[in-house]
Amino acid sequence: MTGVIYERVALIGLGLIGSSLAHVMRQQKLANRITGYARSAETRATAKRIGLVDEIHESAKAAVKDADLIILCTPVGAYGKLAEEIGPHLKAGATVTDVGSVKSAVVRDVGPFMPANVHFIPGHPVAGTEQSGPESGFAELFLNRWSILTPLPDSDKAAVAKLEAFWRGCGANVETMTPEHHDMVLAITSHLPHLIAYNIVATAADIEDVTNSEVIKFSAGGFRDFTRIAASDPTMWRDVFLNNKEAVLETLGRFSEDLALLQRAIRWGDGDTLFNLFTRSREVRRSIIAAGQETAAPDFGRRPKE
Amino acid sequence: MTGVIYERVALIGLGLIGSSLAHVMRQQKLANRITGYARSAETRATAKRIGLVDEIHESAKAAVKDADLIILCTPVGAYGKLAEEIGPHLKAGATVTDVGSVKSAVVRDVGPFMPANVHFIPGHPVAGTEQSGPESGFAELFLNRWSILTPLPDSDKAAVAKLEAFWRGCGANVETMTPEHHDMVLAITSHLPHLIAYNIVATAADIEDVTNSEVIKFSAGGFRDFTRIAASDPTMWRDVFLNNKEAVLETLGRFSEDLALLQRAIRWGDGDTLFNLFTRSREVRRSIIAAGQETAAPDFGRRPKE
Ligand SMILES: NC(=O)c1ccc[n+]([C@@H]2O[C@H](COP(=O)([O-])OP(=O)(O)OC[C@H]3O[C@@H](n4cnc5c(N)ncnc54)[C@H](OP(=O)(O)O)[C@@H]3O)[C@@H](O)[C@H]2O)c1
Ligand SMILES: NC(=O)c1ccc[n+]([C@@H]2O[C@H](COP(=O)([O-])OP(=O)(O)OC[C@H]3O[C@@H](n4cnc5c(N)ncnc54)[C@H](OP(=O)(O)O)[C@@H]3O)[C@@H](O)[C@H]2O)c1
Repeated sequence: MTGVIYERVALIGLGLIGSSLAHVMRQQKLANRITGYARSAETRATAKRIGLVDEIHESAKAAVKDADLIILCTPVGAYGKLAEEIGPHLKAGATVTDVGSVKSAVVRDVGPFMPANVHFIPGHPVAGTEQSGPESGFAELFLNRWSILTPLPDSDKAAVAKLEAFWRGCGANVETMTPEHHDMVLAITSHLPHLIAYNIVATAADIEDVTNSEVIKFSAGGFRDFTRIAASDPTMWRDVFLNNKEAVLETLGRFSEDLALLQRAIRWGDGDTLFNLFTRSREVRRSIIAAGQETAAPDFGRRPKE
Repeated sequence: MTGVIYERVALIGLGLIGSSLAHVMRQQKLANRITGYARSAETRATAKRIGLVDEIHESAKAAVKDADLIILCTPVGAYGKLAEEIGPHLKAGATVTDVGSVKSAVVRDVGPFMPANVHFIPGHPVAGTEQSGPESGFAELFLNRWSILTPLPDSDKAAVAKLEAFWRGCGANVETMTPEHHDMVLAITSHLPHLIAYNIVATAADIEDVTNSEVIKFSAGGFRDFTRIAASDPTMWRDVFLNNKEAVLETLGRFSEDLALLQRAIRWGDGDTLFNLFTRSREVRRSIIAAGQETAAPDFGRRPKE
C-alpha cells in the first residue's frame, strides 16, 4: 500500500489505458477522487454504469477543474486540441502527464498550451492488450511492466519523483529518458512489430492462390500470433505512425535490409546463414522471460485443459 | 474412443511432434504397440525414462520392422537418408507418412525409396509450440487443429481413409490437398510469419541506438509476441526454408511490396491508408477465434492472476 499520492486525478479518455488507471488507482487507493472525460455519450454511459470514476464530465475542461494530476489517455492525434482546451483551466501546481505511445510529438503538440505554473511531464506505460474501450481495462495491466517518463530539461524534480511514485503505486517499474530516445526504443520494440503484423495480415488476406478460409484454418502454423497485435485500435496506431515517422522509417529500413539478406540466403540455399540467425533468437526470448516480461508457457499457454 | 487403428506404429524421431503422437496414441488407444527411433543416445534415454514408447531402437530400420504405420518425425532435411535406410525393411501393405512442414520436397526426397507394396501418404499436422525435444510433447497438441494429407495421384483410397481416421483419433480435423498447394498455403500461414519473426528479432538485436537490455525491458509493447515463434527449432526451420524456396520467395515478394506501400503512407503522412489497412485486420483475427484456432483472451491471457 502506497497511500494517496494525488488528491484529485482527472482521466482524459476512458479506453483501455484510462479505465485500467481508474481500476488500479481505486485498488491501490492512489487518489481520493477520480474524475473522467470521454468524448462519446456511449462511453460516458458505460463508465457511469460500471462506476469507473467518481465524476464523469462531458468536457475535458470540466473534468480537469481542481485536479492535481491530469492524465491524457486518448490517441495522441487528439492531444493538441485537448491541451488547448484544458490549458486555461488547470490548477496552479498541477501535474499534466499522458500515456501516449510516442513522446516527441506530444512535447511538440501539448507543450505550447501548458501554463508556466503547471508541471508537464510526458509518460508512456509500456503495457497493453489488443482490446479497447472502457470495459477492457483491469487493475493489473501495469504490474511488473515498465512505465517510461520523459521529463523536460526544466521539469521540477519533486514533481517528477511524485509521478514516479504514482506509477510504482500502479505496480510498474519506472525509467526516465529523453523523448527522442523513447521514440527510437519504442519504434523497434513496439511500432515496427505492429507495422509488420498489420502488413502480414494484409498480405495473407490478398494472396489469390490461398483462400481466406485456408488462412484461417491453418493459422495455428504461426500466422495467428501476428493477428493479436494487428487487432489493436486502428486510430491509436494511425496516430502512432503519423507521429513517429523518422524513427519508424529508420527501423523499417534496417528491417528491410536484414530481410533482403535472409531472402538471399533462401534463394541460394545458404543453410548456415539461416541456421545461425535462427539460433540467436532463442536467447532473446529467454532473456525476456527471465526479465518477467513474458510467459514461459509453451504456445502462450494456449494448450487445452486436460 | 476410436479404437485401435494400426496394430503397430513406428515413430522415426521423438521430438515435440513424435512425443505428442506417442502420448495421444496411448491416451486414445489408437495403436497396440508403439516403437520409436531417436538419433541421439540422450533422447533414447529420456524416452526410456519417461516410458514414451513400448520399444526404443538405435536404428530406424529396426524400429520399422513389422510396423503397420511409420511416421517420419524428424526435420525434413533428414528424410531422404532415413527413407533410403528403412525402404528395404518396410512390411508389405504398411503405410508410411510424415509430419513435415513442407510437402513437395518430401515427395521428391522420400518417394523414390518407397517400395511399390507400401502406401506412401505425406502429411502435416498444423499444430506445434516453440518447444522441442522428447519431453515437450503432450496428447492435446492436435486437438481441434487441422492435419493436412497430400496423397499422391495413385494413393490407395482405403489407406488414405485409414490415415484420416488415425488423425481424427488424435483429435484433429483432416483436409487433403496437393503437395504444391500445401506448400503455398503454409508459406503464407506459417513459413513467412516465422521468417519475419526471426528477422525482426535479429534487427532489434543489432540496432546500435537501442541497447539489448532496453529491447528486453520494453518488449511488452509488441516485440515479445514475435519472439515466441522465433524461438522454434533452428534445424527444423532451416530445413523448411531450404525445401520450400519458391513459395516462400513468392509470398515474401508480396509482403515486401505491401510493406513498401505502408512505408510510403507513413512517409507522406497518409493517415487514411494506414487507418483503412489497420481496420481490416481485426476482422481476420475475429474469424480465427470463431474458427477455434485462437484464444479470445486479451494479451493471450497473460493477464496476471488477481
Ligand atoms: N492500447 C495499448 O496497448 C496502449 C499501450 C500503451 C499506451 N497506449 C496509449 O494510450 C492512449 C489510449 O489508448 P487506449 O488503448 O486506451 O485507447 P482506447 O481504448 O481506444 O480508448 C481511447 C479513448 O480516447 C477517446 N478518444 C478517441 N479519440 C478522441 C478524440 N479525438 N477526442 C477525444 N477523445 C478521444 C475515446 O473516446 P470514446 O470512447 O468516447 O470514443 C476513448 O475514451 C493512446 O495514446 C495510446 O497510444 C496504448
Ligand atoms: N515444431 C512444430 O511446431 C512443428 C509443427 C508441425 C510439423 N513439424 C514438423 O515435425 C518434424 C519434427 O519437428 P519437432 O518439432 O518434433 O522437432 P524436434 O522436437 O526438434 O525433434 C526432432 C527429432 O528428430 C531427430 N532428428 C533431428 N535430426 C535428425 C537427423 N539428421 N537424423 C535423424 N534424426 C534426427 C531428433 O533427434 P535427437 O533428439 O536425437 O536430436 C528429434 O528426435 C519436422 O519435420 C517439422 O517440420 C513441426
